[in-house]
Amino acid sequence: MKVHTIEQAVRYAETDRMKVVHHSTYLLWYELGRTSLLEATGFPYHELERSGTLFPVIEYSCRLIGAADYGDRVRVETTIDSLRSRTVVFAYRVLRGQTLIATGKTKHIAVDSDHKTHRMSNALINALRPYAAV
Amino acid sequence: MKVHTIEQAVRYAETDRMKVVHHSTYLLWYELGRTSLLEATGFPYHELERSGTLFPVIEYSCRLIGAADYGDRVRVETTIDSLRSRTVVFAYRVLRGQTLIATGKTKHIAVDSDHKTHRMSNALINALRPYAAV
Amino acid sequence: MKVHTIEQAVRYAETDRMKVVHHSTYLLWYELGRTSLLEATGFPYHELERSGTLFPVIEYSCRLIGAADYGDRVRVETTIDSLRSRTVVFAYRVLRGQTLIATGKTKHIAVDSDHKTHRMSNALINALRPYAAV
Amino acid sequence: MKVHTIEQAVRYAETDRMKVVHHSTYLLWYELGRTSLLEATGFPYHELERSGTLFPVIEYSCRLIGAADYGDRVRVETTIDSLRSRTVVFAYRVLRGQTLIATGKTKHIAVDSDHKTHRMSNALINALRPYAAV
Repeated sequence: MKVHTIEQAVRYAETDRMKVVHHSTYLLWYELGRTSLLEATGFPYHELERSGTLFPVIEYSCRLIGAADYGDRVRVETTIDSLRSRTVVFAYRVLRGQTLIATGKTKHIAVDSDHKTHRMSNALINALRPYAAV
Repeated sequence: MKVHTIEQAVRYAETDRMKVVHHSTYLLWYELGRTSLLEATGFPYHELERSGTLFPVIEYSCRLIGAADYGDRVRVETTIDSLRSRTVVFAYRVLRGQTLIATGKTKHIAVDSDHKTHRMSNALINALRPYAAV
Repeated sequence: MKVHTIEQAVRYAETDRMKVVHHSTYLLWYELGRTSLLEATGFPYHELERSGTLFPVIEYSCRLIGAADYGDRVRVETTIDSLRSRTVVFAYRVLRGQTLIATGKTKHIAVDSDHKTHRMSNALINALRPYAAV
Repeated sequence: MKVHTIEQAVRYAETDRMKVVHHSTYLLWYELGRTSLLEATGFPYHELERSGTLFPVIEYSCRLIGAADYGDRVRVETTIDSLRSRTVVFAYRVLRGQTLIATGKTKHIAVDSDHKTHRMSNALINALRPYAAV
């Protein structure tokens, strides 16, 4: 199973008065992780949207084990937890150095531009499969 | 069991190019819901923080059943799913008119200003109990 | 000249590690101020957009004189600094209690749904005029 | 005069229902630009804060000439418009490919951890000077 990795510096605006990154920020990092994974497969999400395949989020979850602050760099590892013809679940791990600070999942449904559910193309499914757990 | 309700207009900046509210926004609405619930109990969160009780989020989840767009008003109903001496789980329902569009939970751990776990005061627990499922 | 006033509680997520509201948040409050002003005139912005009049921001500025933190309520006073057939400049003052903490302006151009500049209707201009400096 | 350049992909969450980047996002990009410039000088901002020199924003402005959308990469060019012992004005240009889409400025005041104004060290001023217009 392939793991797609990106690195990201913490933005100042992402912190809050507790002097750590606000918990909602992890969702934005997850979005960067899967955006970058899709780009790596040759199906960048902005082109999928343009060609009429949208992946709205229908469920998400996140566990915060540690924290990150401005000045830190984080690494987001993205894989695919479940891959079906109409839904896909991405899984994420966020690390600060060697420390795992968060894990999470986002579930997406494939819809067309009228927001009707929609089978993904075989080409797309095949491109995603290497990142999926068997 | 008491339900704490707030109303909120969708902000333009909360929408994204899919012409709906971005999924991360629900976490901000949940934050408004529990902030307002705490205020209603007589323990506003900014005073809890000042007196050395912080409630960082250690887990969250959200299911999106519908959507909201700019021009909509949403109602956030907040209750307490689990209440223990060191942790509390808030539960949320978001409605647009009569339509349920999202449900979610956030789990918090009570810590002191050095981020050590910490028992909540009995006064605080008693104030929260009416919102908790038995 | 009429002044349109709204009140808003500071959101936790709007603060940063300096323990004040992040400077970009003022733009979101300005957006709430003019959204609410437009609604008060009978021309809510989401209906203007639906009927093909968009007001993208083409310029903005902000001076921060004080600060706000979580637990504060702010008041945003919105007026119109300049009103022409194709452009409008909104002006804002943000107060925390009696203390002025920020002033700002946003300039907008009226465009149609193809993003071509566009004269505002006389009805809209007449509705905005009471908020405009002579 | 040196120009400090960074590149950044547009985040999905940074767009709004007008299918362009929300105008407040430019401030976050400016923040990334000056953060990266400071890092290049050997005075990363998170270390400045730790050692007791904070640079709160006291004024900002932005002109939007074009737009950016999800799928675009932008380039932020940061220079220094004015450099004095207690204040610094950064200037920014944002480009999408060869197209200039925004310009802006942010003015900062140097304060210590008690928020009293404060002279910058000569070492810091000397490190910033190459980016400053004469």
